[in-house]
Amino acid sequence: MKAYGFRKELNITTMKEMEEMIEAAKKSIAHGKVANYIPALARANKELLSAAVYLPDGRHFEAGDTAERFSLQSISKVITLALVLMDRGEDYVFNRVGMEPTGDPFNSIIKLERVSAGKPLNPMINAGALAVTSMIKGENLGRRLERLLQFVRQIAANEDITYSKEISQSEFETAQLNRSLCYYMKEHGIITEDVETLMDLYTKQCAIEVNCVELARIGLVFALNGWDPVMKTQLIPEKIAQICNTFMVTCGMYDASGEFAIKVGIPAKSGVSGGVMGAVPRRFGIGVYGPALDGKGNSMGGIKLLETLSKKYNLSIF
Amino acid sequence: MKAYGFRKELNITTMKEMEEMIEAAKKSIAHGKVANYIPALARANKELLSAAVYLPDGRHFEAGDTAERFSLQSISKVITLALVLMDRGEDYVFNRVGMEPTGDPFNSIIKLERVSAGKPLNPMINAGALAVTSMIKGENLGRRLERLLQFVRQIAANEDITYSKEISQSEFETAQLNRSLCYYMKEHGIITEDVETLMDLYTKQCAIEVNCVELARIGLVFALNGWDPVMKTQLIPEKIAQICNTFMVTCGMYDASGEFAIKVGIPAKSGVSGGVMGAVPRRFGIGVYGPALDGKGNSMGGIKLLETLSKKYNLSIF
Amino acid sequence: MKAYGFRKELNITTMKEMEEMIEAAKKSIAHGKVANYIPALARANKELLSAAVYLPDGRHFEAGDTAERFSLQSISKVITLALVLMDRGEDYVFNRVGMEPTGDPFNSIIKLERVSAGKPLNPMINAGALAVTSMIKGENLGRRLERLLQFVRQIAANEDITYSKEISQSEFETAQLNRSLCYYMKEHGIITEDVETLMDLYTKQCAIEVNCVELARIGLVFALNGWDPVMKTQLIPEKIAQICNTFMVTCGMYDASGEFAIKVGIPAKSGVSGGVMGAVPRRFGIGVYGPALDGKGNSMGGIKLLETLSKKYNLSIF
Amino acid sequence: MKAYGFRKELNITTMKEMEEMIEAAKKSIAHGKVANYIPALARANKELLSAAVYLPDGRHFEAGDTAERFSLQSISKVITLALVLMDRGEDYVFNRVGMEPTGDPFNSIIKLERVSAGKPLNPMINAGALAVTSMIKGENLGRRLERLLQFVRQIAANEDITYSKEISQSEFETAQLNRSLCYYMKEHGIITEDVETLMDLYTKQCAIEVNCVELARIGLVFALNGWDPVMKTQLIPEKIAQICNTFMVTCGMYDASGEFAIKVGIPAKSGVSGGVMGAVPRRFGIGVYGPALDGKGNSMGGIKLLETLSKKYNLSIF
Repeated sequence: MKAYGFRKELNITTMKEMEEMIEAAKKSIAHGKVANYIPALARANKELLSAAVYLPDGRHFEAGDTAERFSLQSISKVITLALVLMDRGEDYVFNRVGMEPTGDPFNSIIKLERVSAGKPLNPMINAGALAVTSMIKGENLGRRLERLLQFVRQIAANEDITYSKEISQSEFETAQLNRSLCYYMKEHGIITEDVETLMDLYTKQCAIEVNCVELARIGLVFALNGWDPVMKTQLIPEKIAQICNTFMVTCGMYDASGEFAIKVGIPAKSGVSGGVMGAVPRRFGIGVYGPALDGKGNSMGGIKLLETLSKKYNLSIF
Repeated sequence: MKAYGFRKELNITTMKEMEEMIEAAKKSIAHGKVANYIPALARANKELLSAAVYLPDGRHFEAGDTAERFSLQSISKVITLALVLMDRGEDYVFNRVGMEPTGDPFNSIIKLERVSAGKPLNPMINAGALAVTSMIKGENLGRRLERLLQFVRQIAANEDITYSKEISQSEFETAQLNRSLCYYMKEHGIITEDVETLMDLYTKQCAIEVNCVELARIGLVFALNGWDPVMKTQLIPEKIAQICNTFMVTCGMYDASGEFAIKVGIPAKSGVSGGVMGAVPRRFGIGVYGPALDGKGNSMGGIKLLETLSKKYNLSIF
Repeated sequence: MKAYGFRKELNITTMKEMEEMIEAAKKSIAHGKVANYIPALARANKELLSAAVYLPDGRHFEAGDTAERFSLQSISKVITLALVLMDRGEDYVFNRVGMEPTGDPFNSIIKLERVSAGKPLNPMINAGALAVTSMIKGENLGRRLERLLQFVRQIAANEDITYSKEISQSEFETAQLNRSLCYYMKEHGIITEDVETLMDLYTKQCAIEVNCVELARIGLVFALNGWDPVMKTQLIPEKIAQICNTFMVTCGMYDASGEFAIKVGIPAKSGVSGGVMGAVPRRFGIGVYGPALDGKGNSMGGIKLLETLSKKYNLSIF
Repeated sequence: MKAYGFRKELNITTMKEMEEMIEAAKKSIAHGKVANYIPALARANKELLSAAVYLPDGRHFEAGDTAERFSLQSISKVITLALVLMDRGEDYVFNRVGMEPTGDPFNSIIKLERVSAGKPLNPMINAGALAVTSMIKGENLGRRLERLLQFVRQIAANEDITYSKEISQSEFETAQLNRSLCYYMKEHGIITEDVETLMDLYTKQCAIEVNCVELARIGLVFALNGWDPVMKTQLIPEKIAQICNTFMVTCGMYDASGEFAIKVGIPAKSGVSGGVMGAVPRRFGIGVYGPALDGKGNSMGGIKLLETLSKKYNLSIF
């Protein structure tokens, strides 16, 4: 059996305490901006900030409007990576996508040209994530999407999880930069499938909706290196969960990952919807939702809250 | 009337002399390689080298197998630029495409990211050429292609000119890098039309076929700043022809343009089929076909021949 | 008192076991090359591979020719960073040097131009390390060097540690690329002191010599977040040691840091002399010396050995 | 004898006409800024605009305050190139410096890394110009400077020309970016001499002072492909002058060279002092001084004036 070293004395105690931290964190979001490239994201209320912490014993704490559902966006990259590593194995995946962090923005196309053969630098930048999504197994688009959804439902422990048609449709229509990245990789043989099919699958992947509690539940599974402590099942092989956690540390927060590692030190992945998933190794999962973003695309309130939590409870892995 | 300073004393004298120059130039093509990304180009006989010189009085000299037809490829960029400048005016065009040469290869995507707003650096690199093609006026793809073909037929003085279906189809299927460039520009609003439509038009444009004599005839029109001395018509406004000639000097030979300007000094444009069009200002047009390419995508024999011609007859504009 | 969770059950047991691992790791160094830009490094015996593990109770295990002394080279970057953070505080340092990892090689000059104002991306690439060294406090070169040496002697627990005059002199004479980086940063105000003085100090810093056991001792201090368990002193403030450990994970192994984090997962820093320092959090320090380098400048045998150790004893922090 | 096709009918007629053009051009300099990185340049009166045209028969026209002396700055790059090509031959020079224009700014360091072996892209960007200056022959710094000064005095027809000690001294003290470029090239063997010696020579070269009439006189020599029509001497071999003229067209106006070629079409070289030298092939030389610069470092009034002149007298080489 998987022994996860959960320490009772570090339980994040009361909802009251977390609510206070959220109120404090909210003060930092005044200059944040919601993502505005598609209407569904632009409509988000930038005042929102909510969070949940999921413990290995199945309990969770939450604060703020945690019923609010939001799309995973880039958070989905780490989930899909886990699925694809299970589908294809490390060698197959890392022959096509690198492992190195990069100081370039998530949507940069420059490294694709400089690094040999159009191989994306890592699976957390858009190019790498697109390559990873194209590796999801399945006879057709529908089956591949269904497999991904089933996987998300399982680690989030909610059978009703699905994607937002409105969001995926809008993103499909506006994703010219991602198409550009895809064709660049297709030129170099990193991607072989039809680009529009891939865009369809990828935008649906990004549009999968969760709430904070479900996100914290996913974070918990990564925190326990793939172990689901409630269902008592190893949902993700330990080695693969470890790889995902590593990428969350070295490149989970776009080109602010290095700073986040130093100031917070929790394996985490953010998305432009304003979600942040945290995985405190062997202890608990965190789900945050705060759609006010900083200049690098990370949730301002989310980062502040995680920083406060990390300092207060000494959560840094370093 | 347009006075083109054709000087009789500089007539390239006899076919014999040109044949000797071609024989000499052939010695330099041993290490050249034919373009091999599509079958139709890969089939080309790399031993071939032929050339024609078209004089303002309507005579032309030719040597080698000048009946051979070949696709314009990048040579079409300068012709389309002329048409689009006539269609849209300088301001419209140069708001979307820059005027600066670049030391990067023709297919580089790097500058698109570094230069603000995805604006291509000039109309001779692929990105800029794609943007220019998307500005060809016409209600639909068919009409736009027809207008371009008519224009080529007119300046080449051959009503039968058309494109190769085999070549355009092959290039359409393999042009992933150009699609990547298109979507990058679409993201930044440089291109607004459907990318597949544009690719269709662009690959047909590149597949337009001519022979050396026709290419020399086109070169002559540019050499005379848009004046057709045989039909006695101004086919291209003088200012626009001048702009095209300028781009041929600063960026007509890919990232060997600077060296070509110094060693040859003739406004010229090359294509990966092995064609090179030269426009000796106020004197004559040159068409060369030699499919053995150097590492930068220029006809090895073509460059050698133009260098010999330029030195022998003092043709450099500098 | 600092509680370092050293677990007896994970003691790396016998010298015999480590010797076996070293013999196994040696098989992977056949294609490695010693650094050859200065004679003193080029003379190194590429067959060498030795290692030491230093435990919090003061014992250490060693295997191979651990008496061999070698220069710290880039390993000094993390030590100097600790000293300078103590000298100047986080704000001062990180206003001048960034925190983000980069997929570029250690000696790249590109990012300096692209990232605003010549600020180096992190303190582990050469540019950042040079900026950090220029922040060492002291009235003059001699005093600054002496302070650094005292600091190294303290954390390595050997009063006799000094630098190699031959190595520092050779590197001083050949360090044109580092001078280039310095002047670029001087142009942008990141560095203000005389470049030759800085080069003098930096090349002496890189030439500081240790053996494997001393290096493991330094690694132990970082592993215990700055605590010296033998002398029972906090040599480096906990927060600063944590920052150093973080940089070792995100950018300690040049542009192979991401891969090393996934495959090994131990905070570590390598140098072109062939040294690698590892810091297994709360457990022990590791010092390896194997001058056969891979293409990215890391010790081939050292990486192999650390990978074996990490897998065998489950040392990854992820 | 050198036949320079000067056409009497194109004489720029009267000083009055030129004064009118200058007055018109002055309207465009309101938003210009004088170079401010050294005091001597920052003191320049940005309202100034003066010009001279030098004819092959020895007459010249001038307008504005043409007695004003200013430093050559980057204009010196093309003069030094001529001298060095005479000193070393084409092969030697172009093995070390390329021939390709670039869309990057004059002070960019990026291309040095991307293009193989640190070879600068062309002799008109700073890196290339520094490499060229290091090729000036002479036993020591003093002799090399003296040879350059003698060459400038000869083509400018003024024995009293010298450099400004104040300007060269200021530039020597602030030229950190150029030192960075030098050391980068020294690393790659493009430059071998002592960098401070080279900086001394280069900053004195840039600080050589002329007035508009002398600058026009230099332009005339280039316009006549090296022939001095007054002294009836070939000061620069024809082929070398041609090379210089070519570089003026493809990269004489920093990263606005392409636009200038299209809008003006006169071989020209500008400097941050506000000087612009023009060479109208086979016709006349132009010297302009207007220290108000645009964002790319070119004289705003100077460009406007040259554009007006070019259009009025049809001076474009294209």
